[in-house]
Amino acid sequence: MREWVIAELRVIPLGTATPSVSPYIAACLDVIKQAKGISYQLTGMGTIIEGPLAQVLELVQKVHEVPFTKGAQRVVTLISIDDRRDKQVTAEDKVKAVS
Amino acid sequence: MREWVIAELRVIPLGTATPSVSPYIAACLDVIKQAKGISYQLTGMGTIIEGPLAQVLELVQKVHEVPFTKGAQRVVTLISIDDRRDKQVTAEDKVKAVS
Amino acid sequence: MREWVIAELRVIPLGTATPSVSPYIAACLDVIKQAKGISYQLTGMGTIIEGPLAQVLELVQKVHEVPFTKGAQRVVTLISIDDRRDKQVTAEDKVKAVS
Amino acid sequence: MREWVIAELRVIPLGTATPSVSPYIAACLDVIKQAKGISYQLTGMGTIIEGPLAQVLELVQKVHEVPFTKGAQRVVTLISIDDRRDKQVTAEDKVKAVS
Repeated sequence: MREWVIAELRVIPLGTATPSVSPYIAACLDVIKQAKGISYQLTGMGTIIEGPLAQVLELVQKVHEVPFTKGAQRVVTLISIDDRRDKQVTAEDKVKAVS
Repeated sequence: MREWVIAELRVIPLGTATPSVSPYIAACLDVIKQAKGISYQLTGMGTIIEGPLAQVLELVQKVHEVPFTKGAQRVVTLISIDDRRDKQVTAEDKVKAVS
Repeated sequence: MREWVIAELRVIPLGTATPSVSPYIAACLDVIKQAKGISYQLTGMGTIIEGPLAQVLELVQKVHEVPFTKGAQRVVTLISIDDRRDKQVTAEDKVKAVS
Repeated sequence: MREWVIAELRVIPLGTATPSVSPYIAACLDVIKQAKGISYQLTGMGTIIEGPLAQVLELVQKVHEVPFTKGAQRVVTLISIDDRRDKQVTAEDKVKAVS
C-alpha cells in the first residue's frame, strides 16, 4: 500500500494592515500548485493536500514561509494530518463514505 | 450587515472498535442537514458551516452529542470560526478571492 | 457523573496594526476569569478551560466578541473540546497519566 | 535573531480499543523528550514544543509514527505553529504578556 496522508493546511498572517489576507493566501496557493506528487483542493477554511507524509510536511514548511516573503512578520500555520493505514482512503472517498 | 460566520466543524470519536468512523460522521451530518438557517459543505477533513454565530454554536453542541448516542464514549470536537465584520464574505467568496 | 469537558480556546485577531496581539488576548482572559463554574489555565498557545459543555460554549461566544470591542474587524477563534464520558478526567489528570 | 517557533502538537489515535489513549501519548512524549534542541511543555490538550521550524517538523513526523508502532491503524495529528519574526518570543513570554 502506498504511503498516503490527507492533510489540511491553513496559513494565517497576523499584523497585516487589513482584515483581508487573500493576497498572502493566493501566493501560498501558487506554491502548493507547483508541488509535485501532491494533490490539493481549496476550501473556504484552508487547503486539503494529499500525498506522502514527508512531502506534505516539506510543502508545509515552504508554504509557511510565503507570507514572510510578502511582508508579514507573524504567521500562524495550522496543519491537520489524517493518516489511515488499514486501507488507503482519499479525501474524496471520505466525503462519499458519509454523504 | 447580517451577522454571519464561516466555521469548520470536525467531530472525532475515540475508542471506537475500528479505524473507520464514517457511521458516526454520517449521523452528525444528518443533524447538520436539518439545522435551519445554516448552510453547509462537506470536505475531506470536516464540514464547513455558515450562519449566525449563536446558531452555529448551538449546532456544534448538538452535533457533538451525536457520536455518544451511537455508543462512543469519548469525542474530540474541533471548531474553527472565521468572523469578518468589515464586509460580509461567504466560504465561496473566500475560495474565489484566492483562486 | 458530572458533565464536564476539557476545552482549548484560542482567539486570533486579524488585520491588527502590529504582530503583537497581547492586548486583545489579555482582554479575552479577563472575560474568562469572570466566568462562573469554569476553571482555566493559560498556555503558550491558548487557554485550557474546563466545565460543563453548555457553559464552555457560552463562554466561547463571549470571548470571541472581545477583540471586536477593542477594534479588531476579523477574528479567527479555534476551539477544541475533549469530552470523555466513561470516566471523569481533568486536564491535570491527563497530564499526570502520560508524564 | 535565532530562528525559533512555538508549536503545539497533538496526536490522536483512532480505533483504539478503549477511550483512554494515554499509553500512546506517553510513548509520543518519550520521543519528544529525546529530541535535541527542542524544549517542550505538556498541557492538558497537547504538547507545546519550541525550536527551529525544520527541527520541529522533523519531530512532528517522528512523533506521528509512534502510535502506529504501538498498534494504532489510524492517527490524526494536529500541529499549530506560531512564528513571529519581528522579535523573539517564547511560550513563557507569551503567557507573561497577557497575565
